[in-house]
Amino acid sequence: MKDSNSITPVGDPHADRESWASPSEALDLRLWLRLNTCTTMVENRIRSLMRAQFDSTLPRFDLMAQLATSPRGIKMSDLSRRMMVTNGNITGITDQLEKDGLVERVKVATDRRSSLIRLTAKGRQAFRRMSVAYRDWMKEMFEGLTPERQHLLYELLGELKRSGLVEPLPDTPASIRH
Amino acid sequence: MKDSNSITPVGDPHADRESWASPSEALDLRLWLRLNTCTTMVENRIRSLMRAQFDSTLPRFDLMAQLATSPRGIKMSDLSRRMMVTNGNITGITDQLEKDGLVERVKVATDRRSSLIRLTAKGRQAFRRMSVAYRDWMKEMFEGLTPERQHLLYELLGELKRSGLVEPLPDTPASIRH
Repeated sequence: MKDSNSITPVGDPHADRESWASPSEALDLRLWLRLNTCTTMVENRIRSLMRAQFDSTLPRFDLMAQLATSPRGIKMSDLSRRMMVTNGNITGITDQLEKDGLVERVKVATDRRSSLIRLTAKGRQAFRRMSVAYRDWMKEMFEGLTPERQHLLYELLGELKRSGLVEPLPDTPASIRH
Repeated sequence: MKDSNSITPVGDPHADRESWASPSEALDLRLWLRLNTCTTMVENRIRSLMRAQFDSTLPRFDLMAQLATSPRGIKMSDLSRRMMVTNGNITGITDQLEKDGLVERVKVATDRRSSLIRLTAKGRQAFRRMSVAYRDWMKEMFEGLTPERQHLLYELLGELKRSGLVEPLPDTPASIRH
């Protein structure tokens, strides 16, 4: 099934997450491994920058970014679906952010069982500062591709999403990288 | 900075990780969020299938896949670099797999401080079974794109990798989703 001669040799400094698949593997498998590799590269870079410059994490930023779209707040279940991770994960991140005074839980008068999560004034300010840096990082990380290539990549990934075949199963909890 | 009318509304069942960015955001930012969203969709799906069919996880599979390329075994540091995660993460996964009899640590005669990790016979058999299913899942998940579109996407992601701008920083540890 594999042509072992064409696999990146053990110890090769350029070996990465997609290196186990030889060129003789099916294109869909190699495509997935490369997609995963690219995402991990960007994530690792952001993680490092986020920690060094803001003593924060990518999941915290992602959650704050979702909240920034809705001044009135977002329900836990909506946040979970939007971030594509479990409620448990959202709770953990929210607890941290609440402790730091960046978000707050607000009771909903019409539904006693659920609460809305929203950014505090301090949270909005922190998010604004982080998002300026975040936009700069993205510019740098992707400037090796021309706008035309970026646009094509964006469209192709849109086709993949719309194909519906990678739709997450309803019972699929995901953990999150901190 | 944002055109709030064009953001996916709160509560929209199609909202996901890229929904916080409006169309007026820079293309590079939207591209990254979509890349992340697609990877998360596939990961969530694989996670669910891996658990249901093999009572296993994606990081366990990824580690076994790397080991399957090298019958003599791979050093912890090489595995860490190939999987783009910290040594600590590799140690955790290796411990689990060793407990299940799927991998073993082998002493290196020439280097007393390090050991090689390799698949056991049971591990090789388990990996073969899982990888047959894994290849089928990939086929299903990506068949919404024609081979030509898949190839173009593969090439574009290759350009992104080669641009070197998303190279992980040497001091960047990553955690892994279990």
